[in-house]
Amino acid sequence: MEYLKNPMGIEEKSFEIIGNEMGPHSFTEEELLIVKRTIHTTADFEYRDLVEISETAIETGKNLFKNGTMIYTDTNMALNGINKIALDKTNSKVICYVNEEIVHKEAREKNITRSMAAVEKACSDNVDIFVFGNAPTALFRLKELIKEGKANPKLIIAVPVGFVGAAESKENMDQLDIPYIRVKGRKGGSTVAAAIINALMYMVVER
Amino acid sequence: MEYLKNPMGIEEKSFEIIGNEMGPHSFTEEELLIVKRTIHTTADFEYRDLVEISETAIETGKNLFKNGTMIYTDTNMALNGINKIALDKTNSKVICYVNEEIVHKEAREKNITRSMAAVEKACSDNVDIFVFGNAPTALFRLKELIKEGKANPKLIIAVPVGFVGAAESKENMDQLDIPYIRVKGRKGGSTVAAAIINALMYMVVER
Repeated sequence: MEYLKNPMGIEEKSFEIIGNEMGPHSFTEEELLIVKRTIHTTADFEYRDLVEISETAIETGKNLFKNGTMIYTDTNMALNGINKIALDKTNSKVICYVNEEIVHKEAREKNITRSMAAVEKACSDNVDIFVFGNAPTALFRLKELIKEGKANPKLIIAVPVGFVGAAESKENMDQLDIPYIRVKGRKGGSTVAAAIINALMYMVVER
Repeated sequence: MEYLKNPMGIEEKSFEIIGNEMGPHSFTEEELLIVKRTIHTTADFEYRDLVEISETAIETGKNLFKNGTMIYTDTNMALNGINKIALDKTNSKVICYVNEEIVHKEAREKNITRSMAAVEKACSDNVDIFVFGNAPTALFRLKELIKEGKANPKLIIAVPVGFVGAAESKENMDQLDIPYIRVKGRKGGSTVAAAIINALMYMVVER
């Protein structure tokens, strides 16, 4: 059987199909790169209407990746989906503490989620970009820490998926005065989170 | 702000909401556990109509996990999403060769995808369950190897996502005479693949 076997060829063709089918929109060229990549990873055209990119988010993201940056992810799955070659080229790092014993202990003791305990730990490190694909509780906690003056992220990727708290956790992002990219409503996920970070990195490094 | 912080509580509540909103269906109780988990990980109710479970797939999966089994995944992201505690409890293992140097080399030399080269390697090992969340090329290759008598998987999870080859790779699964779970059309992905494996494991082990 004949089928396309070249990875870059497959991706190019996919983006062409997405462009042809996604219909009218008012995205800038760079915004479109992000939106298309979320559709590419889900095959779900609803993302065209769900992705919201704050005014300075792309510029901020590009500048961070140009200078090397530190990324927190709420799950190892999101961490895993981030392109490590591009990450190296941008001199950037990604951390996710959910499997660390100290985080497990904290979560058990406080009866909170592990990603919530992990976000607290990340805030004491030099993390610039906070990425949430799964854990509304972690995003809620980050927002609390920001309001308490204990966290000062430079960019937030707010795309938790789910039915309990996910949509709510992504509301009122514009009140934080921090650049963000979010997926409105219940949809999102680790693959979407990774896709957005990859899209930003691909704007500043050759692949 | 008040929000639900207990992980098991969040999952239970989510499944309740999914049950209430998913509308009429004709799934068995066990099929429903799989379908609900795909909706849980995507917040996309379309999966109700896209998931197809072959007649003996669940029984086969349960028996494999009862006796300890070997799983191949096409990406590290899918591997990462599989619950390692449940995996240990079922005495099972999961492998994904895409980051191994020998697989890189083979892919470069043959100008094929890494997951395609990885599936060839997996066929020479004792792999029972083949899981595809991303790479149609790998699923195409497995089907070729089956037809050539060079592979004999016991269960196939066929859920590659995408616009080039994904839908086609999942067609005619019923002609292989091997139990399978698939997502029809373009949708699917690593998170969906992991969700299906987790659903099967949770049928045979306490969490």
